[in-house]
Amino acid sequence: MDKPSIGAPRTEADLIALAARVQANAYAKYSDYPVGAALEDDRGRVFLGVNVENISFGGTLCAERSALAAMITAGSRQWHRIAVVTRDGNTPCGICRQLLAEFAAPDAVVFCTNGEGKSQTYRFWDLLPHAFDAEL
Amino acid sequence: MDKPSIGAPRTEADLIALAARVQANAYAKYSDYPVGAALEDDRGRVFLGVNVENISFGGTLCAERSALAAMITAGSRQWHRIAVVTRDGNTPCGICRQLLAEFAAPDAVVFCTNGEGKSQTYRFWDLLPHAFDAEL
Amino acid sequence: MDKPSIGAPRTEADLIALAARVQANAYAKYSDYPVGAALEDDRGRVFLGVNVENISFGGTLCAERSALAAMITAGSRQWHRIAVVTRDGNTPCGICRQLLAEFAAPDAVVFCTNGEGKSQTYRFWDLLPHAFDAEL
Amino acid sequence: MDKPSIGAPRTEADLIALAARVQANAYAKYSDYPVGAALEDDRGRVFLGVNVENISFGGTLCAERSALAAMITAGSRQWHRIAVVTRDGNTPCGICRQLLAEFAAPDAVVFCTNGEGKSQTYRFWDLLPHAFDAEL
Repeated sequence: MDKPSIGAPRTEADLIALAARVQANAYAKYSDYPVGAALEDDRGRVFLGVNVENISFGGTLCAERSALAAMITAGSRQWHRIAVVTRDGNTPCGICRQLLAEFAAPDAVVFCTNGEGKSQTYRFWDLLPHAFDAEL
Repeated sequence: MDKPSIGAPRTEADLIALAARVQANAYAKYSDYPVGAALEDDRGRVFLGVNVENISFGGTLCAERSALAAMITAGSRQWHRIAVVTRDGNTPCGICRQLLAEFAAPDAVVFCTNGEGKSQTYRFWDLLPHAFDAEL
Repeated sequence: MDKPSIGAPRTEADLIALAARVQANAYAKYSDYPVGAALEDDRGRVFLGVNVENISFGGTLCAERSALAAMITAGSRQWHRIAVVTRDGNTPCGICRQLLAEFAAPDAVVFCTNGEGKSQTYRFWDLLPHAFDAEL
Repeated sequence: MDKPSIGAPRTEADLIALAARVQANAYAKYSDYPVGAALEDDRGRVFLGVNVENISFGGTLCAERSALAAMITAGSRQWHRIAVVTRDGNTPCGICRQLLAEFAAPDAVVFCTNGEGKSQTYRFWDLLPHAFDAEL
């Protein structure tokens, strides 16, 4: 889902608002923990994602990975900012950090918020120090 | 990525063409096996996906799951048809079958094609017989 | 965990008993659905596994995959029989079918049981028809 | 696979030696990047693991997760040390960090080595700062 940037540069609040809106579509049947994510690529395009749970829990996709899949599907290959909205303002899990790392700009940032004022900003690479980087 | 249905009903060939087009965006750095998928929901909307590989192979998302994530993010909860384009016309893996099952219509069908004439149609539930269905 | 075959050939009931015993070790904190699995390789060795859940649901490992990891770690590369014990006698999920397929004998069988008399036997390849088999 | 502690306390070198030995059993058909892991629980028991790759790359299990599955299957619930042997001394991926976090002692450490002298020690929680910890 691609929301082209229009007019003034998108603010952190804009990105959070997009994530908060899509959070309503989360499929969180088993955890009751809906998550929305808005991922902005290096051209200012935004891709949205929600968690997609599965009766076999290991099949669950987090919102961050859903948004990333949308970005790659659209042909983008680098992201700069992501907003993640949960009920408690939690951070991306390690699985999502691993997937986001494949396409993260050196200065990528992560906004984690509960959508109601509590917000924390992280530099992405601070969340995955000493990342796995084998030459395969 | 949401392509609203316009005019005449979408044919199998239409769906395959959409999947073939997006296949070019696949991120298949490690397998060199690009995949494109086009998933149609019960309202005739189509969602696209490609495989998103990762240096930690276990983080890889297949095209089918990418498309499914887009569908859920858009608020849809049931799909009827999916087209999957690969170089050899292969079927969805068991992981994707598991995720697709959570949202598959009873008569859902899967079109597998190499994009060059070789095509096979499966009833989805024939691909995942005796599906896991615990009451959690 | 390697239980060498001793004396008379192991019966289906033996394999189920081993799976039922290890089920008590399952870490099913989020689903409250403990699973135990006993996987027998082509040399008659048995490997045990339980589900390992994670607060990020997508990180969850099923019992079948845990047992498979033990088998591969021990150097085995083919299995013939697996017993899976759950409270309702359910089948392996699609994810596990995908992983088991990589190492399944042509005549591999799956015993699914609730550990209290209800049991069903499947030929493994009937559970994953038209399996994904690209040449990578 | 459970190697009971015998005699003198196990050293870091002992743990690395165990990981290096099992590395030979890795199933790294698609990446040609074999990994061995040795995980020590809070009672001094060691569990081994290797990577288990899959033709559907997303089904791949890393060595660290294989070892963790063995630990949980044996009934243990906390680990203190893990040694990971690869050809380049790389760190665990984000997926493995996520799974290891569920059972990591506050002072858990990770030894990463190429098995030939190059070695690096990390405090586990330094590898997954601000870990996801929602109350589900």
